[in-house]
Amino acid sequence: MNDIAGLPAVRRLIDLALEEDVAHGDITTMATVPATVYADAVIQAKQRGVVAGLGIAEAVFLRVDPSLGFAAVAADGDLVEPGDRLAEVSGRARSILTAERTALNFLQQLSGVATATRTMRLLIEGTRARLVDTRKTVPGLRVLQKYAVRVGGGSNHRFHLADAVLIKDNHIAAAGGIGPAVRAARDLCPHTMRVEVEVQSLSQLREALEAGADVIMLDNMDCAMMRQAVELTAGRALLEASGGIREETVAEVARTGVDLVSCGAITHSAPALDISLDLVAR
Amino acid sequence: MNDIAGLPAVRRLIDLALEEDVAHGDITTMATVPATVYADAVIQAKQRGVVAGLGIAEAVFLRVDPSLGFAAVAADGDLVEPGDRLAEVSGRARSILTAERTALNFLQQLSGVATATRTMRLLIEGTRARLVDTRKTVPGLRVLQKYAVRVGGGSNHRFHLADAVLIKDNHIAAAGGIGPAVRAARDLCPHTMRVEVEVQSLSQLREALEAGADVIMLDNMDCAMMRQAVELTAGRALLEASGGIREETVAEVARTGVDLVSCGAITHSAPALDISLDLVAR
Amino acid sequence: MNDIAGLPAVRRLIDLALEEDVAHGDITTMATVPATVYADAVIQAKQRGVVAGLGIAEAVFLRVDPSLGFAAVAADGDLVEPGDRLAEVSGRARSILTAERTALNFLQQLSGVATATRTMRLLIEGTRARLVDTRKTVPGLRVLQKYAVRVGGGSNHRFHLADAVLIKDNHIAAAGGIGPAVRAARDLCPHTMRVEVEVQSLSQLREALEAGADVIMLDNMDCAMMRQAVELTAGRALLEASGGIREETVAEVARTGVDLVSCGAITHSAPALDISLDLVAR
Amino acid sequence: MNDIAGLPAVRRLIDLALEEDVAHGDITTMATVPATVYADAVIQAKQRGVVAGLGIAEAVFLRVDPSLGFAAVAADGDLVEPGDRLAEVSGRARSILTAERTALNFLQQLSGVATATRTMRLLIEGTRARLVDTRKTVPGLRVLQKYAVRVGGGSNHRFHLADAVLIKDNHIAAAGGIGPAVRAARDLCPHTMRVEVEVQSLSQLREALEAGADVIMLDNMDCAMMRQAVELTAGRALLEASGGIREETVAEVARTGVDLVSCGAITHSAPALDISLDLVAR
Amino acid sequence: MNDIAGLPAVRRLIDLALEEDVAHGDITTMATVPATVYADAVIQAKQRGVVAGLGIAEAVFLRVDPSLGFAAVAADGDLVEPGDRLAEVSGRARSILTAERTALNFLQQLSGVATATRTMRLLIEGTRARLVDTRKTVPGLRVLQKYAVRVGGGSNHRFHLADAVLIKDNHIAAAGGIGPAVRAARDLCPHTMRVEVEVQSLSQLREALEAGADVIMLDNMDCAMMRQAVELTAGRALLEASGGIREETVAEVARTGVDLVSCGAITHSAPALDISLDLVAR
Amino acid sequence: MNDIAGLPAVRRLIDLALEEDVAHGDITTMATVPATVYADAVIQAKQRGVVAGLGIAEAVFLRVDPSLGFAAVAADGDLVEPGDRLAEVSGRARSILTAERTALNFLQQLSGVATATRTMRLLIEGTRARLVDTRKTVPGLRVLQKYAVRVGGGSNHRFHLADAVLIKDNHIAAAGGIGPAVRAARDLCPHTMRVEVEVQSLSQLREALEAGADVIMLDNMDCAMMRQAVELTAGRALLEASGGIREETVAEVARTGVDLVSCGAITHSAPALDISLDLVAR
Repeated sequence: MNDIAGLPAVRRLIDLALEEDVAHGDITTMATVPATVYADAVIQAKQRGVVAGLGIAEAVFLRVDPSLGFAAVAADGDLVEPGDRLAEVSGRARSILTAERTALNFLQQLSGVATATRTMRLLIEGTRARLVDTRKTVPGLRVLQKYAVRVGGGSNHRFHLADAVLIKDNHIAAAGGIGPAVRAARDLCPHTMRVEVEVQSLSQLREALEAGADVIMLDNMDCAMMRQAVELTAGRALLEASGGIREETVAEVARTGVDLVSCGAITHSAPALDISLDLVAR
Repeated sequence: MNDIAGLPAVRRLIDLALEEDVAHGDITTMATVPATVYADAVIQAKQRGVVAGLGIAEAVFLRVDPSLGFAAVAADGDLVEPGDRLAEVSGRARSILTAERTALNFLQQLSGVATATRTMRLLIEGTRARLVDTRKTVPGLRVLQKYAVRVGGGSNHRFHLADAVLIKDNHIAAAGGIGPAVRAARDLCPHTMRVEVEVQSLSQLREALEAGADVIMLDNMDCAMMRQAVELTAGRALLEASGGIREETVAEVARTGVDLVSCGAITHSAPALDISLDLVAR
Repeated sequence: MNDIAGLPAVRRLIDLALEEDVAHGDITTMATVPATVYADAVIQAKQRGVVAGLGIAEAVFLRVDPSLGFAAVAADGDLVEPGDRLAEVSGRARSILTAERTALNFLQQLSGVATATRTMRLLIEGTRARLVDTRKTVPGLRVLQKYAVRVGGGSNHRFHLADAVLIKDNHIAAAGGIGPAVRAARDLCPHTMRVEVEVQSLSQLREALEAGADVIMLDNMDCAMMRQAVELTAGRALLEASGGIREETVAEVARTGVDLVSCGAITHSAPALDISLDLVAR
Repeated sequence: MNDIAGLPAVRRLIDLALEEDVAHGDITTMATVPATVYADAVIQAKQRGVVAGLGIAEAVFLRVDPSLGFAAVAADGDLVEPGDRLAEVSGRARSILTAERTALNFLQQLSGVATATRTMRLLIEGTRARLVDTRKTVPGLRVLQKYAVRVGGGSNHRFHLADAVLIKDNHIAAAGGIGPAVRAARDLCPHTMRVEVEVQSLSQLREALEAGADVIMLDNMDCAMMRQAVELTAGRALLEASGGIREETVAEVARTGVDLVSCGAITHSAPALDISLDLVAR
Repeated sequence: MNDIAGLPAVRRLIDLALEEDVAHGDITTMATVPATVYADAVIQAKQRGVVAGLGIAEAVFLRVDPSLGFAAVAADGDLVEPGDRLAEVSGRARSILTAERTALNFLQQLSGVATATRTMRLLIEGTRARLVDTRKTVPGLRVLQKYAVRVGGGSNHRFHLADAVLIKDNHIAAAGGIGPAVRAARDLCPHTMRVEVEVQSLSQLREALEAGADVIMLDNMDCAMMRQAVELTAGRALLEASGGIREETVAEVARTGVDLVSCGAITHSAPALDISLDLVAR
Repeated sequence: MNDIAGLPAVRRLIDLALEEDVAHGDITTMATVPATVYADAVIQAKQRGVVAGLGIAEAVFLRVDPSLGFAAVAADGDLVEPGDRLAEVSGRARSILTAERTALNFLQQLSGVATATRTMRLLIEGTRARLVDTRKTVPGLRVLQKYAVRVGGGSNHRFHLADAVLIKDNHIAAAGGIGPAVRAARDLCPHTMRVEVEVQSLSQLREALEAGADVIMLDNMDCAMMRQAVELTAGRALLEASGGIREETVAEVARTGVDLVSCGAITHSAPALDISLDLVAR
């Protein structure tokens, strides 16, 4: 359970994905490929990008047939070019054909996230800002997509609603102000958590600092205001820029001096990286 | 079970998504929002696109709290503009806040697929071609993404390896030719299925026609060759154009006269449609 | 996952069956048989019939104890006589005794289905008709029983409501006629599916042919009418005879010239084939 | 959970059965029957027999659509004739059509078991013997089939390997005799269990009686020997006749004076009872 | 499945426990311990007590990492002293650290139950009474705690509501007396079960004996009354003392001559046995 | 999902607990209590303590029978005396009897934890220290026991290995010192987490402070050393006292000025609180 493919939740997702694709059997393969045919296959990049999910692809093949051989040629995090070999698979042709699509679907999705993350990450190189993800992930893929973000050079924000405190405007309104909200959260949450508050203005920022917030999210502020926020905060809290972070804007945002830049698009809208599997003559 | 949200597999995915987001509890909300606070919320489009997944969003809210009210204002398939209301939710503020992200993640993902489908679909308007999806879907979301494709005006290809026959090059090689492969598949598969064969050349196309294939996939052929294929086939089989179908190419491909154009990008690379939820004053 | 015992759904059924029989432990065996006793066992037919499910039986034994040895002597599809050895099991006596009943229950049930199928199949030997199963299966055993039908020489009809179109009288009534029903189904269903329509009369048959139905089910027609139907259809659609197919009637029905004869009794009412396991002296 | 359909294991089986039949949707019904069509349906016997499983059928319909109305006309245990109404269902036509097959499959299977049980039971009317089932049940249906046995007038033997002790020849051999086996079992098992021993001869019977067995299974003895066994036992233990109990033999066996007659065929080979559902004009 | 760790229900509980502790990964270990570090660890008792659950601990380590080595030094049932080695674990340091807490939590809980059982058991040494557990167990741990009771020298009462009959006052009232209640239960339950009745007075005891109860629970009687009950019963039924059995009272209760003494505290209130794991230098 | 009983993981545990107790049916109740008998029941404390788990008990009753009425008289967190009413249940007698034991098992276990927590908590009243739990919980009950700790006035430490960083000696050794370990963890973990380090000496404490640890666990230090640690730290990090915290020692430890006192015994060794259910005459 110390690699991503070994986590119970990931094993279950692999099973789910295989069941939705294999169902009661790969009827074409069973009809046409004798059980005794063996084959070798190569998994190759067809686009430039960062690979993520080779361990998941391996787990998919072995789940379909534990006797298959899987040898990774690249490693998660590698930047690959079209034509680069990522892995080799060998064994029963039936098993390779049956597992192919599910393995590739995982690999393409996660490599897409890692690639999108890397692109954003490079744009803020040289600033102090850390690129972080959000909870805007594809349902069911939270843990895997957050892994791909790390592979692409990003960092993770909270995994879910239970492992961190993030106080937003509705919470503030209900609690009767930033001060009461921070105190209530500090009181309930484990001491291992920092308390983060979302603010829309500099006056809210001041309130949050007074309330002792550990992290402050600057929600949809323009860069000028963010620069003021950085100055005003003077290191008393971590500052996270959030809202409308795109390739065109991320560098300028990062240069305001914030500690964190969060971006939903790297998980909810990353296009798949094109990757193929080809059987090779034996 | 006659709507998509009622399918057992979809209910399980909703549970999975909620568990990965709510985990052991929305600590921020529990700390700051009293259990007795009630609220109304509005779900709005922030981008132009086709809505898909309102029933799923509703199911998410009701799973978190069956006492919530959910009223759809738009319907799946509607083309909406920024600012258009999609639905209203009302009830315990805690419940709305806890369910919000999961509901939106589904809605954004599926509306993204429907929107991408519509875009492609419009480009082939006026041709005889039907736009179909592939098995290149996000793991775990097969059934939902294929639903969103239908909502966006596309049609479904097979759902998995067990509900249709699709004979590819490796199957042909293993079976000893197109003829034997088609016969073997016909023999094994239920009589309710058509047999589809993938071909790379016109000579293979001729073989497939002779073998009595019901559907023939033209794999990565250029438009000139596809036109010849259409002529040669003369209605004896359905023809499916496949490979490299992009917004720039789809119209020309469709005009070759093929019956079907299949596209993976509408499911594996559709960007999420931006949709937000806002609490409104009572 | 390329054999029946490897399918996730089948593995789950095996687990379910073992849990319902072993529960919190085989108390008799634990009390009386020392953990160190090893044994050999023979699985034998006690009745004439077709064996089906040896792979399932093996999976049951290995699930109880992966160190057991299981050697199939017969193969699925073999016609066996009383006393014929089907398989040998060896290893810890405790494990063999604990797994015995569950393994045999699967083997007897599936061999019963295969045997019933073979009997019907032999009766239509020499006709062009294919013997197909139905959805009248024992709840939970759909995939396994349909496998046993194939083992017994039959073919499968659709596996469930989602992988084929079968338009019955209520659908026709609701859709406003056979024509509209066929068109609506053709529109919604993947192009990989054929459309089947159930008809009660020759005039309905004519309508179905005009509507372009690919397969037509002749529901409870007598043989004379079926012969007319065959003539009238003249190969434009596949014809399936359905309703009241029994050992006494099947041959005459098949000789009418229909393409398919479907029979529910081979799955819902097949008596178990008597099979035993005996420990042998070491 | 105080009726059979409410047991968690039964609810899970119902879900399993529905998923294997409905899968990703009843495509025919969705294409042809508008969501707004309502209907009434009647469930009728087409054969003489004992009804069992009406609660399960109801649970199936409600699981597909909680808004359906289900009104049982007959009750489990009723002896019905062809044409007798068993239940009425009303509501969305789509839901009724989608649930129909799964509901009937349960009802037919369980009514088949109840009917077979009743037949055997009537044959031993007037003797002191109780008809009991075995562990030779269809995998996954143990609890339901044993319920149907009770409905048909039979009694249950143990449910699984953990809720009773049944010492057979291999246990005796491993334990070093009947005496040691009985003592070992008595020692391990809860005091709420009786200890049953299987014997093949009268001398073994004597040993079992001396060892203090509470129940003794007479394995494949002829009626003469069973009569001697009854005399020899003289009420000191319950006697169970087992092996080769068929309709032709059961009465004679029961008249030997044994307390219990066990029969596997009532669960493993009971033919389904023919039951149909018909939509009626509104 | 012939040892406790192999039971499906136990495997599921192990998975549940690991998931609740490992969740989406041991972040501290992943950050600080390289994947290539190997280590040896020793599991030691820090308190005097009876060990139970070594097989479960082993299963936990192997579930986290099948390549770990686990060597039990002690055996379930051993009485150990502070400092005694129970087992050794070796392999990837990451895996050992990640599995440690879950393995110890099982081991400490079950050893606590075994130790508490042994303490009670020793107090009734020399009497004819058997110490039995109850259904007052920690939710989810029924089967494991009952195993630990056996390891500690106790015996098991029924496992759940379905594997034994225990008629209490409310049942008696509803059935219209002890006689009718016993008859109704005898009628419904498998012949492999004894019928137990709870009584509060000697007159109820007489009724129960007349009704032919096999086991009679003396509910909260004082020792004088229990002695009378023993005398009155004269071996015609097993007698179980129940209610308020504590270390201070159990010996006197057992000396009244009852056959069984049942105690809930050994499962619901047994303090954990202190056990530690330490990495050792390689 | 905003109360503890609504969390999916808790619902699953309730199902698990009910299945292990009800299995295939409450045979005694079914035999003796007619389905038409209705009853009222009272849940009462039989010992002094803090109630926790009333919502879980309610969920158990409603899971068995949604038509039952459950009215809480006390609330979680109330200190109750022997004889105090906690809740009333009314409805079908069968359902109440079947659910009783499982509901009480939850209630007794969780109230035991809350009561043990309160006892410890009162002992440190007036100090600045917060009482926190550990990961030494009963397998499967992590979330519920941590809830009960909060109910009893304690606070939660981390829920599992993924939601907080806690660097122990083995991590330090593998990472090459406290500094590198803290940096590595800070690098990998979300910015919402604090980094906690365990130290055994004052020199390690100094290293941890220099490394910028947010929380420092003082492992098994005596009170004199802890006082020095508090002085030395001077508010630069939170200090957690850990190891050997018992009722006898906790007050003195808390008075050293540490911020947190953690205690495993409140979850792993809390005796159940005695609580009963009694049917009352209608």
